Amino acid sequence: MIPQRLIASKRAGEEIDPAEFRSFLAGYLDGRVEDSQMAAFLMAVCFNGLGDKELAVLVDAMIRSGESLDRDAGPPGPRVDKHSTGGVGDKVSLPLAPLAAEMGMVVPMISGRGLGHTGGTLDKLESIPGFETRISLERFHAVLRDTGCAMIGQTREIAPLDRRLYALRDVTATVASLPLITASIMSKKLAETLDGLVLDVKVGSGAFLSSAEEARALAEAMVRVGASRGLEVTAVLSAMDRPLGRAVGHGLEVEEAVECLSGGGPEDLRELTVELAAEMALAGGLAASLDEGRGAAEALLASGAALERFCRMVSAQGGDPGFVASGRGLPAAPLQRPVLAARAGVVAAVEPRELGYALVALGGGRTRQDQEIDPRAGFRLEVQVGQEVEEGRPLAVVHGAGEDRIAAAERAVAGAFRIAESADTDGLPLILERLSASENSRLG
Amino acid sequence: MIPQRLIASKRAGEEIDPAEFRSFLAGYLDGRVEDSQMAAFLMAVCFNGLGDKELAVLVDAMIRSGESLDRDAGPPGPRVDKHSTGGVGDKVSLPLAPLAAEMGMVVPMISGRGLGHTGGTLDKLESIPGFETRISLERFHAVLRDTGCAMIGQTREIAPLDRRLYALRDVTATVASLPLITASIMSKKLAETLDGLVLDVKVGSGAFLSSAEEARALAEAMVRVGASRGLEVTAVLSAMDRPLGRAVGHGLEVEEAVECLSGGGPEDLRELTVELAAEMALAGGLAASLDEGRGAAEALLASGAALERFCRMVSAQGGDPGFVASGRGLPAAPLQRPVLAARAGVVAAVEPRELGYALVALGGGRTRQDQEIDPRAGFRLEVQVGQEVEEGRPLAVVHGAGEDRIAAAERAVAGAFRIAESADTDGLPLILERLSASENSRLG
Repeated sequence: MIPQRLIASKRAGEEIDPAEFRSFLAGYLDGRVEDSQMAAFLMAVCFNGLGDKELAVLVDAMIRSGESLDRDAGPPGPRVDKHSTGGVGDKVSLPLAPLAAEMGMVVPMISGRGLGHTGGTLDKLESIPGFETRISLERFHAVLRDTGCAMIGQTREIAPLDRRLYALRDVTATVASLPLITASIMSKKLAETLDGLVLDVKVGSGAFLSSAEEARALAEAMVRVGASRGLEVTAVLSAMDRPLGRAVGHGLEVEEAVECLSGGGPEDLRELTVELAAEMALAGGLAASLDEGRGAAEALLASGAALERFCRMVSAQGGDPGFVASGRGLPAAPLQRPVLAARAGVVAAVEPRELGYALVALGGGRTRQDQEIDPRAGFRLEVQVGQEVEEGRPLAVVHGAGEDRIAAAERAVAGAFRIAESADTDGLPLILERLSASENSRLG
Repeated sequence: MIPQRLIASKRAGEEIDPAEFRSFLAGYLDGRVEDSQMAAFLMAVCFNGLGDKELAVLVDAMIRSGESLDRDAGPPGPRVDKHSTGGVGDKVSLPLAPLAAEMGMVVPMISGRGLGHTGGTLDKLESIPGFETRISLERFHAVLRDTGCAMIGQTREIAPLDRRLYALRDVTATVASLPLITASIMSKKLAETLDGLVLDVKVGSGAFLSSAEEARALAEAMVRVGASRGLEVTAVLSAMDRPLGRAVGHGLEVEEAVECLSGGGPEDLRELTVELAAEMALAGGLAASLDEGRGAAEALLASGAALERFCRMVSAQGGDPGFVASGRGLPAAPLQRPVLAARAGVVAAVEPRELGYALVALGGGRTRQDQEIDPRAGFRLEVQVGQEVEEGRPLAVVHGAGEDRIAAAERAVAGAFRIAESADTDGLPLILERLSASENSRLG
């Protein structure tokens, strides 16, 4: 295997021999293949894709590079997880995992960090003082037994090849690739040893794959990889042409997740959380229909039972859930500055990608893997798409530190809002479509 | 400048902002941009190209990353150089530089090493005992003052950004890209502070860009970059569907270059050398027409004046020109083995790329940058395309060391010859076309 020859094959659109591809991937782990060579290969994949056989080799190499979770080490009950392809303001995992556990599921959730313009569940959890996302698999199983759900980062043991590729893709603009996204997600989820998996595939300008066609193709690819390995996968296509909820930024999003767990919070966040919980219950055999699942989920949010489960999980993972009870929230940013509408009109668009990059510039995201994140940095949106605004009315409030950064973020946030005479559309329906191996139905 | 954002722009086919691109390139030199990020960017360029403005920024950054040659440090006279895009058996630079100097030009030639299946001028020069290609710029100017021509490798001072990118492209399968080749060549040549430049753009299976269309596009891009910076560039498209001359391999090619400088040698080598010398004379204002230039060049080869100039340059750069006078040639390989025709017929093709790779396998080329080259290894071709051969007649003689390597080379060389009932064609005309900013004329 000569790395530059294999890269040249992919560049030329030729099919790569499985044995050569295995050797290339193994070579990346043992140092025979350099980061620069893998980066060039990944970019060539972005242009020329991966065939089904190549994708199977990649998924297999990722899983085999580490360990799979031991079903016997967890509690009894249907093991179901959810994964989102990533968006801006998407804090659904935080209320969803304890809600699903409260419904009777075992949720061994391995989550990711912020990627490009999107935030990461782990980074959000770490804005809770003391919360540990880097725990041993042993302790992970103990938390799972105690609370029915546990949320960690990808450990050293789980798919280390994926972990290295993910970090490399993040800095080389090779994230948005259907086969690479498919392999990364499915390798981790297959290593969780699940009974069911629900995918939240984002559609719109704030998603990695913006068009519904691309999102559907990704959903189908993941359903297919799951089916080929005996895992029932349901994919829900949901709107990411605007941020989800009102909060963008790690600490602010945790606060909003707690609102949702308390039966309140923004309507879109609550609706999507309930829908995904219902899909998980259906996949885990705990509900006979989506409607039954939705009803159960809504009741457990309204009663405070899901919030109580969330607090137990936070404690079990070393965090202090006091901020929930005290009502005082997480540590606040030193500066809070409103962004005012420059003109009157109707909010025609709130560009999620622009907000995501504005958050990175504000210190609430990463441009390099080794950067610290300011968990206090973020935005609270004060208006929604379709809403009328007067000139000088606050569109959003910027939370952060440092005058220069705040000023730059104010400009960027202002640029994310499009104010027009009238709005043609309220945007995409929150839930567009669902797909599974057994049935495909379009809701959009 | 956020590296992954700039890479994403190129990936999406968008035009990159000049200031951002400058910052990205500067960041690569100072460590803010990683090798992996540059590799991903280069692969995206392989797919999406570079616009004229982007190419100008790249060329400019390459030149400014180092020093340009000081015209005042060299002797008076028109400064003219030649550059070839690389082929098999192409030793033209060796007779051409002293010939052009003898015609009155100043030739500050910065050459390269072997790349892939092609040989490099520096490697050929280093087969002359004592010849130094790694000399200081000060000494380079001294040689130039004494002999009117000097031949060195790319020093630390000249276009270091190009040097780093070139090494990265070599291991990431991003060499074959029209704008990247253009920038690499033109940055070095522009740093030579020239009055005129003649490009020998190879066409055919032994060239990096095999089709005449691609070669013409490359030639046009280089002529355009030169024009935008006030340098008159003439490009000659020449045949590389077969090796140039009869010798392939470093020491053997030096011997053939000396034959050419003595007024003899293979006809194609002499013809191309004379043609390029005439183009250089025209560009440097030393001849009123190509015909006048050709006449002058032929006379100086026939008289031995060019050979004498070559010997002076060899001495000035530390080499021993004794091999020229002694008539005994350079150190000979221990084994010399003929490759015989397996059947009678007509030589329909001699594949230069196959010969180039056979030379690498024989130890006369590199698969990695740090490898030593055996200067004695090579082939002398005994027949040409279009020639009739009997069964058992020698097609070529392999020179080298090591029975295993020789046997493998014999097979590879035999495979490079195609013997047929009849030859459809004698191949491409030696010179297909010439292009310049002021006039385009096709000869083919």
